[in-house]
Amino acid sequence: MPSISQRGTRLPSSPIRKLVPLSDAAKREGVKVYHLNIGQPDLPTPPKGLEALKHITRTTLEYSPSEGILPLREKMSAYYARFGLQVAPSEIIVTTGGSEAILFAFLACLDPGDEIVMLEPVYANYITLAQAAGVVVKTVTARIEDGFALPPVSAFEAAITERTRGILLCHPSNPTGTVYDREELLQLKRLVLKYNLYLFSDEVYREFVYNDVPFVSALALDIPEHVVVLDSVSKRYSACGIRVGMLVSLNPEVRAAVMKLCQARLSPPLLGQIVAEASIEGTEDYARACYEEYKARRDFFIEGLNQIPDVYSPMPQGAFYTVASLPVEDAEDFCRWLLTDFRQNGETVMMAPAAGFYATPGMGRNEVRLAYVLKKQDLARALELLRASLEAYNKK
Amino acid sequence: MPSISQRGTRLPSSPIRKLVPLSDAAKREGVKVYHLNIGQPDLPTPPKGLEALKHITRTTLEYSPSEGILPLREKMSAYYARFGLQVAPSEIIVTTGGSEAILFAFLACLDPGDEIVMLEPVYANYITLAQAAGVVVKTVTARIEDGFALPPVSAFEAAITERTRGILLCHPSNPTGTVYDREELLQLKRLVLKYNLYLFSDEVYREFVYNDVPFVSALALDIPEHVVVLDSVSKRYSACGIRVGMLVSLNPEVRAAVMKLCQARLSPPLLGQIVAEASIEGTEDYARACYEEYKARRDFFIEGLNQIPDVYSPMPQGAFYTVASLPVEDAEDFCRWLLTDFRQNGETVMMAPAAGFYATPGMGRNEVRLAYVLKKQDLARALELLRASLEAYNKK
Repeated sequence: MPSISQRGTRLPSSPIRKLVPLSDAAKREGVKVYHLNIGQPDLPTPPKGLEALKHITRTTLEYSPSEGILPLREKMSAYYARFGLQVAPSEIIVTTGGSEAILFAFLACLDPGDEIVMLEPVYANYITLAQAAGVVVKTVTARIEDGFALPPVSAFEAAITERTRGILLCHPSNPTGTVYDREELLQLKRLVLKYNLYLFSDEVYREFVYNDVPFVSALALDIPEHVVVLDSVSKRYSACGIRVGMLVSLNPEVRAAVMKLCQARLSPPLLGQIVAEASIEGTEDYARACYEEYKARRDFFIEGLNQIPDVYSPMPQGAFYTVASLPVEDAEDFCRWLLTDFRQNGETVMMAPAAGFYATPGMGRNEVRLAYVLKKQDLARALELLRASLEAYNKK
Repeated sequence: MPSISQRGTRLPSSPIRKLVPLSDAAKREGVKVYHLNIGQPDLPTPPKGLEALKHITRTTLEYSPSEGILPLREKMSAYYARFGLQVAPSEIIVTTGGSEAILFAFLACLDPGDEIVMLEPVYANYITLAQAAGVVVKTVTARIEDGFALPPVSAFEAAITERTRGILLCHPSNPTGTVYDREELLQLKRLVLKYNLYLFSDEVYREFVYNDVPFVSALALDIPEHVVVLDSVSKRYSACGIRVGMLVSLNPEVRAAVMKLCQARLSPPLLGQIVAEASIEGTEDYARACYEEYKARRDFFIEGLNQIPDVYSPMPQGAFYTVASLPVEDAEDFCRWLLTDFRQNGETVMMAPAAGFYATPGMGRNEVRLAYVLKKQDLARALELLRASLEAYNKK
């Protein structure tokens, strides 16, 4: 029997999804599981997007162009303009979700052995996708005691070696919810120019910034040839399943290399593009309502978390996640136990152990990543379950 | 300005899609382009599949499980059973089109520098996806003068080195339409066992075998741990745009490594899975009609090709492609000229230069790959255009 590759062996399991077999087993027993582990919004997809599916008249669901359908790219161009960003439709490549944008950006811009600097805790899938591409991830640690603020730029500079080719920023941050201000971004810009790096900026959560500070895109930093923006409509339109993301770059060489990969995979999903296109315009009220809902949930959820004895979460400024510390030694063991053993009135809660969001071994062992994308009453119940389970777990 | 990666630079452009900017320009001038370059079937998607979109009642288009929705995997399991293949739903992983199945198979099973042996002419995207994965492609040449028959197994053995980890077969073949019989497959099986290799078998065109020989799947060779089948519903249901493929393996280690990649990209397209699921059952009449239509087109098109002076195409036994030789020195130059210069009554024809389907430099320079997925009357007109354009080109 042939063995799988070392690459395949070394790939980390998703900390968000690796406990799914345990939650599936619990559900088969009839247990109700509150999912704080995954950023799967429960809000509805814009009705205009859903309606578009009912009005498809084409009888053959053919390939779309490899770069995505033009009307979607035109509407995305207009969308970016609303944020003050000048991006032509030809500078937008539609990808199969944001994850494909990430993988293709790595494959096109970086060679095996090249290094990329990221902040940790980090969106875990970056690490898997970087490893798939043979790219070495170096991390700069943001600390919970600092509210996961951007570390001093000197920490980034210390992580840069002669193999460093890029910095990746998730902004606003999944998993910490941190939002970076213009001054912080300008410091990173200086590094990018000094070391001639790419700045990969994942701006999927751009519309979810809860403080009154305006969101600053990497595209507004006036270093167009260095910037690759990774985007997705998944969270914005509660449509994670349509798999529509974007890679935006004003660097024509980057786009040309990405396009070769796009052509090799032929086409992003046609149906998802139809939904996305219909969801972009005339949905300002929808966007506002989602924003207000997430903001209210954040306020409620973070306050509730911090009321549980020895639980601590900083106040995230954006996105819909937080990383919280728990009064346990090994949060992964606790998360497993929640799914296999803990029940209260036939219910339990699922969380993502945060260790998988750090590249540094040993970091985040007592932390979990939480997504607050449930209705307030479900968040309230999840908080109750967390409080009761911590008590029970620590009495064991 | 940071430079793109050597990997990105070296990636080949798709011979199927790289001339698209020229055809787009011709269309903007009002020219009608007959597309023989791409396997984009013109037949309708099964009405049951299209209908399923109209009946979606969910209001949030959420992520599907990373391995695909269970009802689709169950129906695919029943589908394989119709071909005498025992595959459990848990042995089927739904991918974003067949192309993702290919990429993930390479990433999971092969390390950078590992070698894989393929037949050339080869489906060009295998080469791009292999290069993206750092995998070295070695080819065994099938020759037009032999009707692109499988070369002797000794030719495969000669291509095997100590870094060889797998053989990839496209069966029936895109681009040549060759179908391999049981005896040929058993010879490959002996090699697979002798050198402990993977056998990657792309069986997307399984249902399009026009001779009365039964199609033999790699899954029927009784080497379950060696076989990774790559599949897709794109062509079978004329639904290339839904991006639903499958990776099938009875080797649990392969599936576990592939699943880590699947989790990193979160979910295959939900909407496409809904269409695919609705298209599998109760569509035997549909499948029969497609089969008869493609068979009739094949007979008509290949005969017509061979009637053009100095054009030669073997008779393909499966799929809906052929590789034909033309009386030109440089088929790519000819294909470009067709799009930029040749017009007859405001019409021209687009073909894929075959050189991009060979890994060996210089091979296939006077050949083109042709897909016969147009209506008979359009194929007839495309043949007229080809005849007239060859005459005009060779008079230049």
